[in-house]
Amino acid sequence: MKNIQSYINEHKDRFLNELIELLKIPSVSADSAYKNDVLKTAEAVKKSLEKAGCDSVEICETEGYPIVYGEKIVDSNLPTILVYGHYDVQPADPIELWDSAPFEPIIKSTEIHPEGAIFARGACDDKGQMYMHVKAMEFMTSTNQLPCNVKFMIEGEEEVGSVSLSKFVKDNHEKLKNDVILISDTGMISKETPSITTGLRGLSYVEVEVTGPNRDLHSGLYGGAVANPINILTKMIASLHDENNHITIPGFYDKVEELSLNERAEMAKAPFSLDRYKAALDIDSVYGEEGYSTNERNSIRPTLDVNGIWGGYTGEGAKTVIASKAYAKISMRLVPNQDWEDITELFKTHFESIAPSGTRIKVTPHHGGQGYVTPIDSIGYQAASKAYQETFGKTPIPQRSGGSIPIVALFEKELKSKTILMGFGLDSDAIHSPNEHFGVWNYLKGIETIPLFYKYFTELKA
Amino acid sequence: MKNIQSYINEHKDRFLNELIELLKIPSVSADSAYKNDVLKTAEAVKKSLEKAGCDSVEICETEGYPIVYGEKIVDSNLPTILVYGHYDVQPADPIELWDSAPFEPIIKSTEIHPEGAIFARGACDDKGQMYMHVKAMEFMTSTNQLPCNVKFMIEGEEEVGSVSLSKFVKDNHEKLKNDVILISDTGMISKETPSITTGLRGLSYVEVEVTGPNRDLHSGLYGGAVANPINILTKMIASLHDENNHITIPGFYDKVEELSLNERAEMAKAPFSLDRYKAALDIDSVYGEEGYSTNERNSIRPTLDVNGIWGGYTGEGAKTVIASKAYAKISMRLVPNQDWEDITELFKTHFESIAPSGTRIKVTPHHGGQGYVTPIDSIGYQAASKAYQETFGKTPIPQRSGGSIPIVALFEKELKSKTILMGFGLDSDAIHSPNEHFGVWNYLKGIETIPLFYKYFTELKA
Repeated sequence: MKNIQSYINEHKDRFLNELIELLKIPSVSADSAYKNDVLKTAEAVKKSLEKAGCDSVEICETEGYPIVYGEKIVDSNLPTILVYGHYDVQPADPIELWDSAPFEPIIKSTEIHPEGAIFARGACDDKGQMYMHVKAMEFMTSTNQLPCNVKFMIEGEEEVGSVSLSKFVKDNHEKLKNDVILISDTGMISKETPSITTGLRGLSYVEVEVTGPNRDLHSGLYGGAVANPINILTKMIASLHDENNHITIPGFYDKVEELSLNERAEMAKAPFSLDRYKAALDIDSVYGEEGYSTNERNSIRPTLDVNGIWGGYTGEGAKTVIASKAYAKISMRLVPNQDWEDITELFKTHFESIAPSGTRIKVTPHHGGQGYVTPIDSIGYQAASKAYQETFGKTPIPQRSGGSIPIVALFEKELKSKTILMGFGLDSDAIHSPNEHFGVWNYLKGIETIPLFYKYFTELKA
Repeated sequence: MKNIQSYINEHKDRFLNELIELLKIPSVSADSAYKNDVLKTAEAVKKSLEKAGCDSVEICETEGYPIVYGEKIVDSNLPTILVYGHYDVQPADPIELWDSAPFEPIIKSTEIHPEGAIFARGACDDKGQMYMHVKAMEFMTSTNQLPCNVKFMIEGEEEVGSVSLSKFVKDNHEKLKNDVILISDTGMISKETPSITTGLRGLSYVEVEVTGPNRDLHSGLYGGAVANPINILTKMIASLHDENNHITIPGFYDKVEELSLNERAEMAKAPFSLDRYKAALDIDSVYGEEGYSTNERNSIRPTLDVNGIWGGYTGEGAKTVIASKAYAKISMRLVPNQDWEDITELFKTHFESIAPSGTRIKVTPHHGGQGYVTPIDSIGYQAASKAYQETFGKTPIPQRSGGSIPIVALFEKELKSKTILMGFGLDSDAIHSPNEHFGVWNYLKGIETIPLFYKYFTELKA
């Protein structure tokens, strides 16, 4: 690829401004109040793909939010790369913890990003990372260097389970046919230590509701005499872990892939400072499953976390009430071989079984997906590795991530191709948190590295 | 007392309309958004006392909400009754569960109240019950039948701990001097079975905060590796009860008054149907401390209930987040001899001690008060008993309530007089709940019964 650095230098202000415009639209898929904004974002993505040189860009309607599809077929004998990304974002709350408005992007310097980072919801996850691909495409088409065919599939429901995309993929095997799938929706170890994600955890997300009495009660008149749904909920949730922080749901670990000591030793070589980790989170101690290191706990081991809990009086001051209902949102991260639908069923059966009399339980599955692992001897991985070597000057480290992109396992099942996860975000980017940001350096480095993946993948495939 | 029934018949529509006007003002003391309404309610109470014939009515400013004080001194040789009540109300939420707007009172028939009940926040607790005393006073002064001196002290912070009232009582021993204190802020067994409350539970109300990492985290990248404040909070709260639903805080039961088997047998004679109790709450089973009956659990035994819990994402859909903080509001109902300040301290010490490393705990005491018991051989109790006998045709049953009126213990300590709790509400009135109401029959029965207490108390005291 010729002149990529000079092209980036010449256009970087525009690259940033275009991303900022995209970030201004609050495309929160979880909250129906933002419906029009999500749809508006799909239109903006469509236009950006057209400008980047895609031939036939379409908004594919679904039962949920649309999928933006575009392609450029150079020669049917050449390999085809399918780029996946998402234009929806996580909810911004708690809003009060943001230092700047989540949908009014600003560029600020940080310790890790002295050259500046874009602060906005979706800056890294995934508008910023998705848009690197659009700009990489623009570079390749406008300089006549696109070495292979490319297809873009950008969805609007990743943060709520990719339900419509699943159906779209199942219904469009031919249209989506490809040799490799390329995604930037993960992170890397640091700016000095590039890494490629080789594993993702699966996910099962459920909501639970505990009902006690048929109405809120005065805690003096009824306190101590009826099951208090909040007390019961805390008891039920607490019982889901034992004293070693193992999950107590019967059958939960039955299919968990156990790594060999060798594999674990290999993992332990990745640079990691527990002190820096604790300092960054301002905690005096880590916490988790007995017998595993921090990096193992958040990548190769399954987990169960409450993501939200509510019930009773939560306003200012005091209210002496026993609530009729209490609620929690609970997610389980799963590892290879755990089937998310089986686990969801195990959770539901177990949770219902531990409810004391005097209460009624409702478990509502939200969404989920399978975990994923990719081998490092594939052509896709090798091409990505060479691309990073060229732009970072270092061989990237293969790394399992604790996050989930449920659709990746489905891609493999339906489209029979492997996914390469080239992520340019950092753990400190605060995705899903207040003050999400994406380094300007990382953004431009992504745009620089991606075309090289096209080059090496095409060469190795030949 | 002559002509009381004809007086009530003649004026009952006005009695209802005046109460309805008072109920329209949302005097929610827990929420500062209602500050002006709380102050407006104090003014309305002042006017009503003046109209009822009190001589010197004043709004006594405090550091919080004002106390409305009024008196009518007939003869300093006659006994003095101090009437206490409160003009503030509980918050109305959850608003969506009300069938009519909480501050737009309406009268509707119910199974228990075929002659109609007033539905509004505060209808029973305590505007309706407090206003019975104002109307009883009006009857006695306008018919020249007031047999003794009377003082009114109506506060605006009962639902948030009566902090200003405590100071007011301590500073005004002479002004508040009395022979007996009369309060209607409790209930009775049923319209057919009148009862007088002879005991109240104490209260300790605290708020707890668990902090884990310094910001909300992505549950995939950090899940399983750091202490999740919500999981930790559920575990800590769950540990506060053992498998027999005894409270596990060390020292919690040390001073609890243990009733004799005889006393418990006496209590068990009060009419009570467990089936009707369960049916009214739509629960298949009651739940509570091993070894005690439902009526014991909610009156002579201390309890610990979560009144509110919150943390993480509680909106529509799913968010895969590990919250930085989780919160709960917890109240403990206490029985005679448990000191609320000691118990608050025991809670704080214990709760902080069980926090795992990786978390920080903050315990904020909200408010509290001591429990109370009154003997049934006092002149006050005998006068109340005779009053009920006359209007209900039955001797009332003495009964311990599970509720708390923390200020009652303070009255005894500071003013050296006993309190008589003549409550006309019913358990089914849904105080502190959506659709709070107060039977029209109960309201008028209260106005009819109260003047007889004045009569018999003055006679017995002579």
